[in-house]
Amino acid sequence: MAEAALKRAPEDYAAAARDEVRRVLDRVKAEGRTSLTAPEGKLVCDAYGIPVPKEGVAGSASEATRLADSMGYPVVLKIVSPDILHKTEAGGVLVGLRSAEEVAKGYDTILANAKNYNAGARIEGVQVQQMLKGGTEVIVGAITDGSFGKLVAFGLGGVLVEVLKDITFRMAPATRQDAMSMLDGIQAHEMLKGVRGGDPVDREALADVIVKVSQLVSDFPEISELDLNPVFATKADAIAADVRIVLDFDAKPRPAVRSNEEIVTAMNRIMRPKAVAVIGASAEAGKIGNSVMKNLINGGYKGQIYPIHPKADEILGYKAYKSVKDVPGVIDTAVFAIPAKFVAAALTECGEKQIPGAVLIPSGFAEAGEPQLQDEIVEIGKKYNIRLMGPNIYGFYYTPENLCATFCTAYDVKGSAALSSQSGGIGMAIIGFSRSAKMGVSAIVGLGNKSDIDEDDLLAFFEQDDNTKVIAQHCEDLKDGRAFAEAAKRVSKKKPVIVLKAGRTSAGARAAASHTGALAGNDKIYEDVFKQAGVVRARSLRQLLEFARGVPILPTPKGENVLIITGAGGSGVLLSDSVVDNGLSLMQMPPDLDEAFKKFIPPFGASGNPVDITGGEPPRTYQNTVRLGLEDDRIHALILGYWHTIVTPPMVFARLMVEVVEEMKAKGKVKPVVASLAGDIEVEEASQYLYDHGIPAYAYSTELPVEVLGAKYKWARGAGLL
Amino acid sequence: MAEAALKRAPEDYAAAARDEVRRVLDRVKAEGRTSLTAPEGKLVCDAYGIPVPKEGVAGSASEATRLADSMGYPVVLKIVSPDILHKTEAGGVLVGLRSAEEVAKGYDTILANAKNYNAGARIEGVQVQQMLKGGTEVIVGAITDGSFGKLVAFGLGGVLVEVLKDITFRMAPATRQDAMSMLDGIQAHEMLKGVRGGDPVDREALADVIVKVSQLVSDFPEISELDLNPVFATKADAIAADVRIVLDFDAKPRPAVRSNEEIVTAMNRIMRPKAVAVIGASAEAGKIGNSVMKNLINGGYKGQIYPIHPKADEILGYKAYKSVKDVPGVIDTAVFAIPAKFVAAALTECGEKQIPGAVLIPSGFAEAGEPQLQDEIVEIGKKYNIRLMGPNIYGFYYTPENLCATFCTAYDVKGSAALSSQSGGIGMAIIGFSRSAKMGVSAIVGLGNKSDIDEDDLLAFFEQDDNTKVIAQHCEDLKDGRAFAEAAKRVSKKKPVIVLKAGRTSAGARAAASHTGALAGNDKIYEDVFKQAGVVRARSLRQLLEFARGVPILPTPKGENVLIITGAGGSGVLLSDSVVDNGLSLMQMPPDLDEAFKKFIPPFGASGNPVDITGGEPPRTYQNTVRLGLEDDRIHALILGYWHTIVTPPMVFARLMVEVVEEMKAKGKVKPVVASLAGDIEVEEASQYLYDHGIPAYAYSTELPVEVLGAKYKWARGAGLL
Repeated sequence: MAEAALKRAPEDYAAAARDEVRRVLDRVKAEGRTSLTAPEGKLVCDAYGIPVPKEGVAGSASEATRLADSMGYPVVLKIVSPDILHKTEAGGVLVGLRSAEEVAKGYDTILANAKNYNAGARIEGVQVQQMLKGGTEVIVGAITDGSFGKLVAFGLGGVLVEVLKDITFRMAPATRQDAMSMLDGIQAHEMLKGVRGGDPVDREALADVIVKVSQLVSDFPEISELDLNPVFATKADAIAADVRIVLDFDAKPRPAVRSNEEIVTAMNRIMRPKAVAVIGASAEAGKIGNSVMKNLINGGYKGQIYPIHPKADEILGYKAYKSVKDVPGVIDTAVFAIPAKFVAAALTECGEKQIPGAVLIPSGFAEAGEPQLQDEIVEIGKKYNIRLMGPNIYGFYYTPENLCATFCTAYDVKGSAALSSQSGGIGMAIIGFSRSAKMGVSAIVGLGNKSDIDEDDLLAFFEQDDNTKVIAQHCEDLKDGRAFAEAAKRVSKKKPVIVLKAGRTSAGARAAASHTGALAGNDKIYEDVFKQAGVVRARSLRQLLEFARGVPILPTPKGENVLIITGAGGSGVLLSDSVVDNGLSLMQMPPDLDEAFKKFIPPFGASGNPVDITGGEPPRTYQNTVRLGLEDDRIHALILGYWHTIVTPPMVFARLMVEVVEEMKAKGKVKPVVASLAGDIEVEEASQYLYDHGIPAYAYSTELPVEVLGAKYKWARGAGLL
Repeated sequence: MAEAALKRAPEDYAAAARDEVRRVLDRVKAEGRTSLTAPEGKLVCDAYGIPVPKEGVAGSASEATRLADSMGYPVVLKIVSPDILHKTEAGGVLVGLRSAEEVAKGYDTILANAKNYNAGARIEGVQVQQMLKGGTEVIVGAITDGSFGKLVAFGLGGVLVEVLKDITFRMAPATRQDAMSMLDGIQAHEMLKGVRGGDPVDREALADVIVKVSQLVSDFPEISELDLNPVFATKADAIAADVRIVLDFDAKPRPAVRSNEEIVTAMNRIMRPKAVAVIGASAEAGKIGNSVMKNLINGGYKGQIYPIHPKADEILGYKAYKSVKDVPGVIDTAVFAIPAKFVAAALTECGEKQIPGAVLIPSGFAEAGEPQLQDEIVEIGKKYNIRLMGPNIYGFYYTPENLCATFCTAYDVKGSAALSSQSGGIGMAIIGFSRSAKMGVSAIVGLGNKSDIDEDDLLAFFEQDDNTKVIAQHCEDLKDGRAFAEAAKRVSKKKPVIVLKAGRTSAGARAAASHTGALAGNDKIYEDVFKQAGVVRARSLRQLLEFARGVPILPTPKGENVLIITGAGGSGVLLSDSVVDNGLSLMQMPPDLDEAFKKFIPPFGASGNPVDITGGEPPRTYQNTVRLGLEDDRIHALILGYWHTIVTPPMVFARLMVEVVEEMKAKGKVKPVVASLAGDIEVEEASQYLYDHGIPAYAYSTELPVEVLGAKYKWARGAGLL
């Protein structure tokens, strides 16, 4: 059969493998079981080319010794019983049997132990297995996550790893590249390279097992859990010593997802509407429907505005209608500013009017213990194909259209960052920070209860929105993590996607659950899947905001060589720490470049990296060294450490740096430059000036500029640009 | 002998133990060796009561079997040779020998291997050792660090731990409490509690080994390295299976340190002088000596000011002198503003004038490749007992005396934080931040090259300075880490000591070395010793500054129960994450308290912790819940999450919170309260107002307020107040 298989074309081989596994699973299902026996596990592994030890099942002690003789000693004996899942616990495993006598005796012992453990257990025999020796024990497995679906896992075997939880995940199916990245993705990855003179593992063989496991669970959604534990990884191969497969025949298939085209078409109408209806528009100051009207008008929106009100003829100078159905023209977006209990009826009218999007500001739904109210509007949305934003949100801003579809204050600093938040409070923090830090935004969107529109819909819209250069999202959960990750993987190739995942810690997750009714997932899974999808993860609210502000204005670096040029040696040390903390590489300075820098700095300055120009230097020393740093193509990014002195005051430094960067840009030398400014309060003005001119700069911080540069690098690496 | 020992008094026993070890070491020294043989190691362990397995040295195969028979099988055989340190590598170790035959054969094998490895090695026999089984393999060791001296180390045994570097250090001698904290101080500490049904280790026995090792290396400074690897830790005991001791008979004793009284007397004269001389005072604007004079005068210093100048009769209205020796009165502090090459001569005159302190602003010493210039002034300082601050510094500020002994701008925001920096650039960042954030300071001190006065001198001064409530230090190295740690351990019991250790990473350490010529130590050692000394470690420059600003204004919490009260559910989730990140504990809400909070919040708000009062609430909901939070003695600290709404605008919230806190303070209910404000830019003013009134508050950040609270808690725990 093996030979016949080799002669088949790969796709036939894959089909044959699937047929083989299907037969096994069908039998298990027919027998009403939910887990595979060891021999069944072996059949499945064989079908998918996952290496397992030689083995056979013996029905008697003599059969066991015959099998053991044929595969060579030592061997392992294991009970085969559909009723005993935890074999070790049942005394159903004996290892290291070195002779026929030991095997015969072991056979009897195991049977006795099994009977003792569970007198009623059906015993199908004792498995005799080639015992694997040496190598590194690792674990390859797969789980089914509520949000991300099938995930493949990899870790080192052994008690210590269980204690340290040193394991890494990827969405299945995993590519070979994903699998290789998993080998480097565990804390103890050095172990795989061989320690204390031990052999390195065969990385290709190990990656192959990971890829095949991930393919297997993707092909068969009913495989809810799979464990190869341990896999013995040696310099020659990777063989799974034990296979455990658990099935869930009731697993529901993933609901069909909308096509990207469908999402983009609807989102474009909603986010860039030609006409907006305000349901619950009001002339009375203090009402939400009044704030929304004012924001639309005062924000400068140029499209049609239709106030909807049961009685009024006119609101704030606009003709009012009793229902959206009375409006003569097409409506793209309906903003709701009415109490929760009235939403369903008004939404149905929107459906009849064929409005593609509803912005549901009202609270009082799932978050307030009224899930049935939310279910009702979700059904209406589905029936009429209305996309729902919210409920329980502040609304949204889309600055290129001067559109403030919100009851919060109007926001008008245009720029290229698109932000969203699940929580209204965080949305307000985004608005305040944006205004304060002069961070231009293209959009700010509240997602609230996410009854329909969620992060991946926004990703699809911002992907094709030329006004957006970076996408920054705050979320507490992802209702469909897989859809998000797939969208992010595609979008992050083009634009940085930055995510602050709240509820990272178990305490945070509990708070999130009480806040939104959504159960937050295991944070390590988010961590790994975000990485797999090219998402840059922000660790704090301030980081989300600073990354959104700084990442889009930095050019993409062309390589990993980072150089620090500093006037303050002390800043150089702290900046070096930050470089390491943020996964960046301090360039190893080539001798000729070192000499070139030396010419510009005093003899007691330090060459190497950081280039320490020392504190008392005039502006031209900064100018000369930074120009050289931009000019030499071996250097890919610059971190500047400025020290406030009388000789080179803050604004002199700032203007000069902008000049040099502009001068070199004109010569085609474009590199990311960030700056840390140490000095008296004048450095704040200088930092703002630098930021306004394309150099993310921070006063009194040696960390923030490097964090922003690090985020740019993380994105560029994930997007395959480095 | 053992019985005789038991009858002795403990101090006699200790003396006898020291005598025993002294005899062993003397013999090793006499023989010109620098390491102990295994039997010598056993003697040393026996003397100090460190448990080791039964063992003996055999000179023949038959002697080996006789020994093995007497101690029981299995046994281990090990070569005994002063010329073979790495026994395993030499094939000089055989384990698990189960019979007399195996032992006899093993004896011959080991001898053959040893000859093969090193034909010239002197073979003293083969050690036969009881083989320890089961338990958890751990490592206890000791090293000699250039800055901290003797350190005791603890970690788990095995390859994986070597890879993960999961090891923890304490200064020796370690107390029992130190030793117990080490058991919890490794990443994989769960291992010691028993996993997968394994037994927990005997923590007392393990701690005992650690304490004894730390005492041994403290008693014998010539023991430069010691390794007990592995120690088998079981539920009953902890036995060291292998002992390795390396000696350094050339080790220099630690130089005598000044008494605290001596340090404080000198530092008080320097920092709070009755008279200051400015050597190199100048009337010419732009000169350093001019800036120093102006800062002294304009800063409002009320003591005597004596300008020293070779020619001038008067400078800025003050009578000038040619030399300090010409000044009629006593001088406490001489500020140097002359080039490096003139310092030595002027310093000698200061010595002759019996001035106790010199503030050496000039650069051009060790940092500029002129170590001999620095050596020269250090010698003069020693000769005349002048304490030297610097050289290569900005000087210092001591605001209670209105003293600005610096060439930087005058600084006048008085407060209770004393800051210092090794680097001038960082000093300027401290000044800028302090002014910008309105952080009141008692002192800002530049330490620069630290030729004499360093961090521990400042600790001694600020300890007894009633104007200082918190001490925050930036350093790149510690010239005498032990003196620092001992001072910090004492001082941190009274006042928080916060340290930003730059050069944490290897890249940072390299930059530090090029910057100051000081070799930065292993960061894990700093981490652990700081903890042992009660030092709160800042992870970034901004953290150092924010901790210095916030920690002194927070009252000390009386317990670990932290409660979050938030208007924004989203902030509650992020604040919960921060609580975990900063080592704080979210209080488990007792049912009666939960009910009490529920009365104040809307039915759809979330009770529990965080208390989510929801966003649309009026001021009284914040007031009621925060008052309850302050009133109930089971709650020890509050974190507030504010959400900007029209109903409760930022300044209304801020004033109200200050009112409630004041009201409860009047009733004796004093607790730390911090706040995170999410909203439009008005929250910045509200945050500043809150901060000014004792509530550290941050706009657009859910991390910073919790970090500050976390720092207060870390300090309180280290000081034994919790």
